[in-house]
Amino acid sequence: MTAAPYLGICYYPEQWPESQWRDDARRMAEIGVREVRIAEFSWARIEPSRGEFQWDWLDRAIDTLTSASLRVMLCTPTATPPKWLVDEAPEILAWDRHGRPRRFGSRRHYCFSSPRYRNETVRIVTAIAERYGQLDAITAWQTDNEYGCHNTTRSYSPAAATAFRDWLSNRYGTASALNEAWGTTFWSQSYRSFTEVDLPNLLVTEANPSHLLDFYRFSSDQVISFNRLQADILRRLSPGRPIVHNAMGFYFEFDHYQLGLDLDAIGWDSYPLGFLDLAELPTHIKRRYMRQGHPDFAGFHHDLYRRCGRGRWRVSEQQPGPVNWAPHNPAPLPGMVRLWGVEAAAHAAEAVSYFRWRQVPFGQEQMHAGLLTPANEPAPGFGEARCAAADFASIEARAVEAKVALVHSYEAHWVFEAERQSAGWSYPALLLEWYNAARRLAVDIDIVAPGDDLSKYSVVLCPSLPIISEDAIGAFAATTAALLFGPRTGAKTSVFHIPDEMPPGPLQDLIPIRVVRCESFPEYYVATGQWEGQDVGCRIWLDHVESEIKPIAQTADGVGLLYEHGRVHYLAGAPEPAFLASLIGRLVSKAGLRTVELPEDVRVRRSGELTFAFNYGPNDVTLPAELFAHDPEFISGGQTLSPASFSIWR
Amino acid sequence: MTAAPYLGICYYPEQWPESQWRDDARRMAEIGVREVRIAEFSWARIEPSRGEFQWDWLDRAIDTLTSASLRVMLCTPTATPPKWLVDEAPEILAWDRHGRPRRFGSRRHYCFSSPRYRNETVRIVTAIAERYGQLDAITAWQTDNEYGCHNTTRSYSPAAATAFRDWLSNRYGTASALNEAWGTTFWSQSYRSFTEVDLPNLLVTEANPSHLLDFYRFSSDQVISFNRLQADILRRLSPGRPIVHNAMGFYFEFDHYQLGLDLDAIGWDSYPLGFLDLAELPTHIKRRYMRQGHPDFAGFHHDLYRRCGRGRWRVSEQQPGPVNWAPHNPAPLPGMVRLWGVEAAAHAAEAVSYFRWRQVPFGQEQMHAGLLTPANEPAPGFGEARCAAADFASIEARAVEAKVALVHSYEAHWVFEAERQSAGWSYPALLLEWYNAARRLAVDIDIVAPGDDLSKYSVVLCPSLPIISEDAIGAFAATTAALLFGPRTGAKTSVFHIPDEMPPGPLQDLIPIRVVRCESFPEYYVATGQWEGQDVGCRIWLDHVESEIKPIAQTADGVGLLYEHGRVHYLAGAPEPAFLASLIGRLVSKAGLRTVELPEDVRVRRSGELTFAFNYGPNDVTLPAELFAHDPEFISGGQTLSPASFSIWR
Amino acid sequence: MTAAPYLGICYYPEQWPESQWRDDARRMAEIGVREVRIAEFSWARIEPSRGEFQWDWLDRAIDTLTSASLRVMLCTPTATPPKWLVDEAPEILAWDRHGRPRRFGSRRHYCFSSPRYRNETVRIVTAIAERYGQLDAITAWQTDNEYGCHNTTRSYSPAAATAFRDWLSNRYGTASALNEAWGTTFWSQSYRSFTEVDLPNLLVTEANPSHLLDFYRFSSDQVISFNRLQADILRRLSPGRPIVHNAMGFYFEFDHYQLGLDLDAIGWDSYPLGFLDLAELPTHIKRRYMRQGHPDFAGFHHDLYRRCGRGRWRVSEQQPGPVNWAPHNPAPLPGMVRLWGVEAAAHAAEAVSYFRWRQVPFGQEQMHAGLLTPANEPAPGFGEARCAAADFASIEARAVEAKVALVHSYEAHWVFEAERQSAGWSYPALLLEWYNAARRLAVDIDIVAPGDDLSKYSVVLCPSLPIISEDAIGAFAATTAALLFGPRTGAKTSVFHIPDEMPPGPLQDLIPIRVVRCESFPEYYVATGQWEGQDVGCRIWLDHVESEIKPIAQTADGVGLLYEHGRVHYLAGAPEPAFLASLIGRLVSKAGLRTVELPEDVRVRRSGELTFAFNYGPNDVTLPAELFAHDPEFISGGQTLSPASFSIWR
Repeated sequence: MTAAPYLGICYYPEQWPESQWRDDARRMAEIGVREVRIAEFSWARIEPSRGEFQWDWLDRAIDTLTSASLRVMLCTPTATPPKWLVDEAPEILAWDRHGRPRRFGSRRHYCFSSPRYRNETVRIVTAIAERYGQLDAITAWQTDNEYGCHNTTRSYSPAAATAFRDWLSNRYGTASALNEAWGTTFWSQSYRSFTEVDLPNLLVTEANPSHLLDFYRFSSDQVISFNRLQADILRRLSPGRPIVHNAMGFYFEFDHYQLGLDLDAIGWDSYPLGFLDLAELPTHIKRRYMRQGHPDFAGFHHDLYRRCGRGRWRVSEQQPGPVNWAPHNPAPLPGMVRLWGVEAAAHAAEAVSYFRWRQVPFGQEQMHAGLLTPANEPAPGFGEARCAAADFASIEARAVEAKVALVHSYEAHWVFEAERQSAGWSYPALLLEWYNAARRLAVDIDIVAPGDDLSKYSVVLCPSLPIISEDAIGAFAATTAALLFGPRTGAKTSVFHIPDEMPPGPLQDLIPIRVVRCESFPEYYVATGQWEGQDVGCRIWLDHVESEIKPIAQTADGVGLLYEHGRVHYLAGAPEPAFLASLIGRLVSKAGLRTVELPEDVRVRRSGELTFAFNYGPNDVTLPAELFAHDPEFISGGQTLSPASFSIWR
Repeated sequence: MTAAPYLGICYYPEQWPESQWRDDARRMAEIGVREVRIAEFSWARIEPSRGEFQWDWLDRAIDTLTSASLRVMLCTPTATPPKWLVDEAPEILAWDRHGRPRRFGSRRHYCFSSPRYRNETVRIVTAIAERYGQLDAITAWQTDNEYGCHNTTRSYSPAAATAFRDWLSNRYGTASALNEAWGTTFWSQSYRSFTEVDLPNLLVTEANPSHLLDFYRFSSDQVISFNRLQADILRRLSPGRPIVHNAMGFYFEFDHYQLGLDLDAIGWDSYPLGFLDLAELPTHIKRRYMRQGHPDFAGFHHDLYRRCGRGRWRVSEQQPGPVNWAPHNPAPLPGMVRLWGVEAAAHAAEAVSYFRWRQVPFGQEQMHAGLLTPANEPAPGFGEARCAAADFASIEARAVEAKVALVHSYEAHWVFEAERQSAGWSYPALLLEWYNAARRLAVDIDIVAPGDDLSKYSVVLCPSLPIISEDAIGAFAATTAALLFGPRTGAKTSVFHIPDEMPPGPLQDLIPIRVVRCESFPEYYVATGQWEGQDVGCRIWLDHVESEIKPIAQTADGVGLLYEHGRVHYLAGAPEPAFLASLIGRLVSKAGLRTVELPEDVRVRRSGELTFAFNYGPNDVTLPAELFAHDPEFISGGQTLSPASFSIWR
Repeated sequence: MTAAPYLGICYYPEQWPESQWRDDARRMAEIGVREVRIAEFSWARIEPSRGEFQWDWLDRAIDTLTSASLRVMLCTPTATPPKWLVDEAPEILAWDRHGRPRRFGSRRHYCFSSPRYRNETVRIVTAIAERYGQLDAITAWQTDNEYGCHNTTRSYSPAAATAFRDWLSNRYGTASALNEAWGTTFWSQSYRSFTEVDLPNLLVTEANPSHLLDFYRFSSDQVISFNRLQADILRRLSPGRPIVHNAMGFYFEFDHYQLGLDLDAIGWDSYPLGFLDLAELPTHIKRRYMRQGHPDFAGFHHDLYRRCGRGRWRVSEQQPGPVNWAPHNPAPLPGMVRLWGVEAAAHAAEAVSYFRWRQVPFGQEQMHAGLLTPANEPAPGFGEARCAAADFASIEARAVEAKVALVHSYEAHWVFEAERQSAGWSYPALLLEWYNAARRLAVDIDIVAPGDDLSKYSVVLCPSLPIISEDAIGAFAATTAALLFGPRTGAKTSVFHIPDEMPPGPLQDLIPIRVVRCESFPEYYVATGQWEGQDVGCRIWLDHVESEIKPIAQTADGVGLLYEHGRVHYLAGAPEPAFLASLIGRLVSKAGLRTVELPEDVRVRRSGELTFAFNYGPNDVTLPAELFAHDPEFISGGQTLSPASFSIWR
């Protein structure tokens, strides 16, 4: 992946008069667009009634774009089955957790488990791929749109129940194996056959956590196999074109690592202002970054999806201005639309595709800005996207060899959904806190899956990994990196039991500790102690550890907060930010890596020979001199960054 | 309407032993009651089983009242279809938005769209009107009770779905016209026929806003036609008697202007303390007015319903003491029950009817005060109602010719329900803020509908009018009044598109501005700027305007907050109260009207030759001298008002 | 009941390898366990398919325990009907208030009203009692588990509707009697027959309160009769063994006094930390007692269940460490697990049974601590339970003759559920405030049911009793105790009407007051006044009283706050804590009882000749000298108590 990143655009020709298409294509090419994503959500336009295909408009749209030297990413339209299909086969609908079919009228109303919908998907994807798969104009495919958006990963339909039973049967073979795995002797829950097992909704009180976890795994698998169904067709009928899906931010309900295995590259949809508005953050943070987004949100996902795409990733949709879907929708600070694009490039994106070419004056998203206004005039994002395209030309998207890894597991999130045990425990928040602590030290990060080869890293951060697979423990054992584990790591077996050897389960091979008791705290309580002469605190959770080794940080009552065993470290609670920053700083420095304490609004990222610095703050900021090893050669900007600006140097 | 207002009372003879009726009637007459509203909710008593009518008790009740020289307003009982009817025809039930039939056991359980319920309505209303329509005793009718109360305007029943499809077919003629209007090319939502269209509930995510708006319009129309069904029968069988409905406060789900066209007068039900308790207001305001109600709530509705009734309006139900339905139910300050009545008269009410004659010791409203206690002794409201009746005698309900108009549109509310775009945007709150700003200046206000003749006004305030009809723009163009428009005005076409010419759409004929971008803000953000040397701020929303004219207020970043073009003004955001007050003050003064800055607890209202001042505060207050043009002749009170008191002067 | 209390344990042999049982039994005996509760939730293990009973494992489990000289309390397994039964007879399921069947997958999914489930209950209970009822090993029975937990008292199933109609028919005889009682003339709600009456859920707005109250009474009765069904079988087939049920804390949805009539003793499940976390209390209180629980929660329930069991009661489940079901689950302060046990003994418990023997590593409660860890090592609770057993040996559980009674009525709670009238009104909170005020004065309390003989008390506290039965008024009249009644007492008749004579209804025989108006307040309002020269306040509620007697405390406006008539006192509002403490203090002192103002964290309890003091606070505390009449003989501890410790003296 050493090509420079390129500019893409999301376009819906069917929403505009055909007379406008040629001019649209011309202007796209003018500002540097290389690839246009089309036909998302267009099933009803392609097939207005069963079997009556209307290809002509799409033929002409593709032709028009091609004539302007634009490449086309074609989307499968399966996120929006049309009304005639829903009426013909209401069994394709997903059901919500209250047991109600989700009705037609918006999008993503289908159930991943419906055999009928899978057949229809094969039919429409085949039809599209047969018509366009061999076209030179078509240079990439997108499957569906934002799997799982609007809580649609998990469906509680009869079709889902049937599929879940089959999935369980495959997993466990016999009902007695399932009973053993789930511990159904608890509360008289044993099953005589798989057909007796229901979905875990509408219960009187909490479900068996093994039942829940398996349902979450199953639901993730259904997304994966639904996508694979499409990918297989596309790969067969349109060989050589990358198959991509556009995933979302802050979305952990299915396993994107697995999704990535069936894709050639992965995309994600980056809406920094909307995400900030939805996030649970203190008001002073939300106020500070209202027009910029949180400095870590985009970077975190760039690093995450780089892993999901095994190096090949992009921003499939980039916020171009105010959006329509957050509770509040302010405009970005001038410069941010460009900055977001360049930051993606710094994290080695192949492409950044702004969403959308032109604001559409009707329908659900009419208040979502585009690069053009509904009146076809340039909106503020237009010029910024053009600048980003120019910036891209000077960048080779070569991922830096990060020396610090952050372990993230989708399954971990499901485990904590199934067993909260503390209202304040949020796995996504934990991940972001750890990511933030490291990035504030000017450290580049790779996000890795449990079991990934860790041999190239100097420091591995693992905020929490409740189920440690054999692969995962093997990778931890094999690396020489310093390892830092957070609480609840190794707390469960693969079937959601407390391990026989007690937590942290297999991690006991690496550090001689046993967690014999767990407690969790309200938000007003901090377990305070001492570490290296400083006051430190942990919140939310406290594992009580029994060990032959002494904790290197403990509370006044003598409860251990931090254990060290050679290169392996275990945190018994969720550390307060200052504690975490000091701790990670110490580990990183000890590993011989240089750290620089960055100003709070600045993030730095290296890519190949380039270093990028981004100012997310509302004020001018001067970069610390320690960032510059020797006389820097500035490609863009300088040592002082105005708000919403960036600099690049060699 | 130059007659003095009169005292009414709400009475349920069926809830009391018949032996008590005569004494009740006598005491009503004694305190000055002229008209008694009866038979509301009495269907089961009139017709305990299908076709078995029991008129005798009602005959005698009417007779008893008439004998005491009381007039009778008879109600149709359609708000409470009896159990036998529900069991016989469960298809008459409304369905809630979760898709569940609403069950028998309280009230308003019927669906406006049920053909069967419309037939039953015709049957029962005809029966009652045939029996009593020609009686001299019957001097007025009330249809049903509080249409839409408890979220009942919108029903999601199969009957509603069928009626909605018919309504759409009438509106659009062809499915392709509907597709065009709704922009169904977005998200593959096109329909091949009207029968494919569903109600917009239980969707995965937001519905198409055009779909929503049409459903809201349809739901409003169903209320109107249901009421017309009754009015037509009553008009035919009981000619010459005014037909009234009792509407509610803070209730915008159906178009009361349209309702008023089928009525002779309109009533509304005024519960100042309950409304305050339910309102989202700062605690210091709620604490200050806990026993009085908010100083603007009653006045706003009086002015609104005066317009809805085209001059003929009343208070159908007036709070007499503590009620039962608010989260907290304190007692009014002594004097308030009388004050509320007199204030209605000052706003030109025809009648003020206290609810209820006697507190009933059983059923859902047993904790709702009456003028009498359940033990038949005078409650505090009794004496106050008697005083109000005496006060009325000295008042001619002649509406002042207000020079300031406030434009209110029910459709505007539906538009903002369908497209919030900012969690902080509340159309009712906006209306009240503008109303408050003007009333604090001692200005009398007419509330007007879009399209109303504006020629008699000096200043027209339009907080927001997203869809501007041809009539509306004509009226704005035709007046010489100063016009002040708020943000989002002209933001949508009649089918919920962004106008081709961009917002403010047709308003561009009056002021050369184009809104090219919209943004909305969290509650902690204020867009601050300068206007006439003072610091001003806007919240919640900001339209970014492109114009040949310069803004006369703008932010530090140069974003326009206020545009002036001759007599036409456009506010790009929701102004902070101080800014709004200054701005309205300037416009009103410039128009040659006198303004007086009132103490915060005082409101003033002119009626004919009389001026009224009301003290809603907890302290004595002296009225500013500027209120008195020359030596005032006090009819009641004086220049200093004790708490919960009023004065009247010529 | 003069035997010393004993230690019990909750044990689930079916969850552990049989090879472990013998060692478990040995260790239980070693730490002093006398009785082991087993077979709760074990239906699926006993009867894995219809009629295929598997007794062998249970035979062996009982045998193993018996061999270690342990007694066995056997449980009926009806809280968890197995899946095969649910699939065979889905009509046994309870329905939630949204009208949805509650599904299998957790527990308590059955409907108390299902005739089919009652038949199945008879079948399984008979089978178990026939097999084990005569066994010497079996020394007690527990019916089901935690009736009503997870909001399961009230079911909205078709079976419940049918049973409710029968219940109404039995209660009222004729539909017209029901119409009269419910006041169905209000809102046209009259019924022609009982078959027309529905359950009061899914209504448009509030239900008729008489309808609600009867549904709540019915639902309580269904629990009682379901339990009686089991008790009758057990009593017949296993005579001489006490029948117990384990009730819950803060649970008022069914009448535990009535339940107690069919039991020989009652148990309750005490989880002080979980209860505190769930309680609505100020943060400083929750922080202070995070690791101890609230000082009054356990005592209140001990005193309550002592009455429910007519003197015979126990703690069926005692928290042993962190639990799994509260939002936050901290660990108890060292000492608390023992302290809780001893406190129960001080309140005259027969037994304290810790839940559970060993933490189970699978299923829903895997994060619930046991006395042993999942790895079979002693958890902190292990040693504390052993200490408690030793403590018990020195205690004779002889209830003190309390001189102060607190009147508690389950029906009162249902009345206030049906008619809140003030969002701040909480009957449980009121009870606890009154209990707290008295206990802070070192006073021992009996909780009594309305109608209980009050002749032995000096002071009777009645926070609120809206419906006063003939028995209740008789008992109040018959005692010579000082009586203190709170607001809303006597506010309703038995059919939920306001009494003809006005509130406080029959209480007017004892104190000449009439409540002519009620008002309720938001949380920010306090009605302040003067009493005995001090400033006092009432919140939430204010009854306006008419009386020939003068209030002895009143507001500045002259509204009475407190009325005294000989030994009878009436509080018109909910007193602020300081007012209540002073008032109760005065009454108790006046009655010649000694009061001691205790430090806030300390509670004192007398039992026979012993006095116990418990320190719930985080600091050392010295007991006030006034507590010691003469030279105390300390059985345990001394005058100074460290945190989480207790002392006992003669």
